[in-house]
Amino acid sequence: MSIKTLDDLFIHTLKDIFFAETQIKKALPKMIENADDGKLRGLFEDHLDEINTHLERLERAFQLLGKDASGEKCPAIVGIITEAEELMSEIDDADTRDAAMIGAAQAVEHYEITRYGTLCVWANQLGYNEVRDLLEQTLSEEKDADDKLSQIAEGKLNAQAAA
Amino acid sequence: MSIKTLDDLFIHTLKDIFFAETQIKKALPKMIENADDGKLRGLFEDHLDEINTHLERLERAFQLLGKDASGEKCPAIVGIITEAEELMSEIDDADTRDAAMIGAAQAVEHYEITRYGTLCVWANQLGYNEVRDLLEQTLSEEKDADDKLSQIAEGKLNAQAAA
Repeated sequence: MSIKTLDDLFIHTLKDIFFAETQIKKALPKMIENADDGKLRGLFEDHLDEINTHLERLERAFQLLGKDASGEKCPAIVGIITEAEELMSEIDDADTRDAAMIGAAQAVEHYEITRYGTLCVWANQLGYNEVRDLLEQTLSEEKDADDKLSQIAEGKLNAQAAA
Repeated sequence: MSIKTLDDLFIHTLKDIFFAETQIKKALPKMIENADDGKLRGLFEDHLDEINTHLERLERAFQLLGKDASGEKCPAIVGIITEAEELMSEIDDADTRDAAMIGAAQAVEHYEITRYGTLCVWANQLGYNEVRDLLEQTLSEEKDADDKLSQIAEGKLNAQAAA
């Protein structure tokens, strides 16, 4: 990592989120397998499809900037996923595990929302308009995913776990 | 960690955010020291004061639940802070470093927003109304801090780094 300008920082952060998306793609199948609530499982399955689109957009962004698409290890997402996996493996009760997985998935979404949000601001300042438009589409989908998780969390699922 | 019910999960997550707040409190003085922009430095200083209030509210929440206030190591916040510290130490240009620190601070805020948000939903479902009210106050302050960081990011600061 050699960061001298905002442009370098932008590329570094693009690699960071590319790595994060690949890690989330790897972690999701286990979350799908562990989800007890059908609605939650469906949401995770849909999100796995979306991630492929997010990765394609990132590849296109790298291409537009004349760079090879590659990831850079990001301790933050590793920590968030580690925490999710620990919780999944240690909770036996299905409703409580679902509640924990919703919380963990929302932590993932918020990490992505903050990173894509920052990248959009920087892309704007750097005049990378086409790249910004790609990132804004993904940002909007991450916010939708977070909203859907909130709806499940506030609905019947956690009410059952509390019963 | 032995989590059998939503109540156990609630206490576990309360310990998680208590640990996170203590880690952020430790990390902030170095960010204050490294911030070049006066407005950004002021924001970090104000946030350090706020964290003490957040910790007091968490202590009160533990007390209301008849538990000792304590933290539980949370790999997510450790990862987020590690990433922030790596960036701070590797960027020489002041404007670019400020831009990186704003991004890192927003990642911290979003982690707290998602955790406090989840805790508020669960406190509601568990009927812990007084605890929920305490957590909602902090949630609102974390959202304000994130908004203020966005305002600086979108303002002149990053425009300078891009120049």
